[in-house]
Amino acid sequence: MEFLKRKIEQDGLVLSKDVLKVDSIINHQIDPILMSEIGKEFANRFKETKVTKIVTIESSGIAPGLMTALKLGVPVIFARKRKSLTLVDDLLTSTVHSFTKNETNEISVSNKFLSSDDRVLIIDDFLANGQAALGLVDIVKQAGAEVVGIGILIEKCFQQGGSLLRKEGLRVESLARIQSLEEGTITYLEESEAILS
Amino acid sequence: MEFLKRKIEQDGLVLSKDVLKVDSIINHQIDPILMSEIGKEFANRFKETKVTKIVTIESSGIAPGLMTALKLGVPVIFARKRKSLTLVDDLLTSTVHSFTKNETNEISVSNKFLSSDDRVLIIDDFLANGQAALGLVDIVKQAGAEVVGIGILIEKCFQQGGSLLRKEGLRVESLARIQSLEEGTITYLEESEAILS
Repeated sequence: MEFLKRKIEQDGLVLSKDVLKVDSIINHQIDPILMSEIGKEFANRFKETKVTKIVTIESSGIAPGLMTALKLGVPVIFARKRKSLTLVDDLLTSTVHSFTKNETNEISVSNKFLSSDDRVLIIDDFLANGQAALGLVDIVKQAGAEVVGIGILIEKCFQQGGSLLRKEGLRVESLARIQSLEEGTITYLEESEAILS
Repeated sequence: MEFLKRKIEQDGLVLSKDVLKVDSIINHQIDPILMSEIGKEFANRFKETKVTKIVTIESSGIAPGLMTALKLGVPVIFARKRKSLTLVDDLLTSTVHSFTKNETNEISVSNKFLSSDDRVLIIDDFLANGQAALGLVDIVKQAGAEVVGIGILIEKCFQQGGSLLRKEGLRVESLARIQSLEEGTITYLEESEAILS
């Protein structure tokens, strides 16, 4: 998606070969026009999949999740993240380890919002090691619902998340696929390579 | 705002004389059409105030903040909430006590996103004791920026937050002003009373 790539080049900061900071447009300050375009793009890519619910995770997934939900005309649910969670009957939970922050969180969704009839589109801002996405897939499956796809804003293709999810047979659509952040430069995966990967 | 009141009556749950649960439309599952209408309403109410930035707080403030930002054509910043925060130079921080959850959090905004030229509209989902809103006002003032108003989805008028903020001379616009949740029933403040309060 050229619009997102342009915004990343303009406003993103490469902090190291692993870390791209986009806190001025996506995950602290949010550009609402960008989010609206992102919602339109996901809605278009998944328009044939009969989505009934969007599932995302607080806090950075809420903006793109909401804009996609608005375009598709379905509700969005955001999973809550907690250090540890006392077991509550009416929650679907999963455990997610963040390598970036080196912490493990319980994530949860109230079971009243997902049923076995649901066709779920998962939305998140970053895909790196894939732990958050796998946790959300786990929660959707616990509800007996189907994951019709995963929509990601920025995929770090040099980390394993994308391959992990695709090996599970999941359809992953990433709007910006980054091959490398070496030497302070953002290199995108060429479309031709993306098809083969 | 009649649309929000109707949704609250339809989908809200009065759990006690203090607690109204709206997790099926606002703060866990989100109704994107409702949020879009809310954004339109806030944009209309504050259209003369020359807003340059929206400031809200994770996670439940993000959806209404984003939709208002989209309608006003300005960025939205969400303050992050943490149990305790190691002091970092480039953060504006404040302390917020939640009476509902009985916990104290540091909230923070990166100082690069607010400047003394900014005219800030604060958006949040609930106004009860006013602690979160006061924390956000504090952060905006630390940046030397001006608070042009506070937009709230649901104000519990039987708690002190609204009067606290209005006594400070702040303009507070609440879309649904609840007078009482006694006996499991939602009673709204009449418009005539609202003007006097």
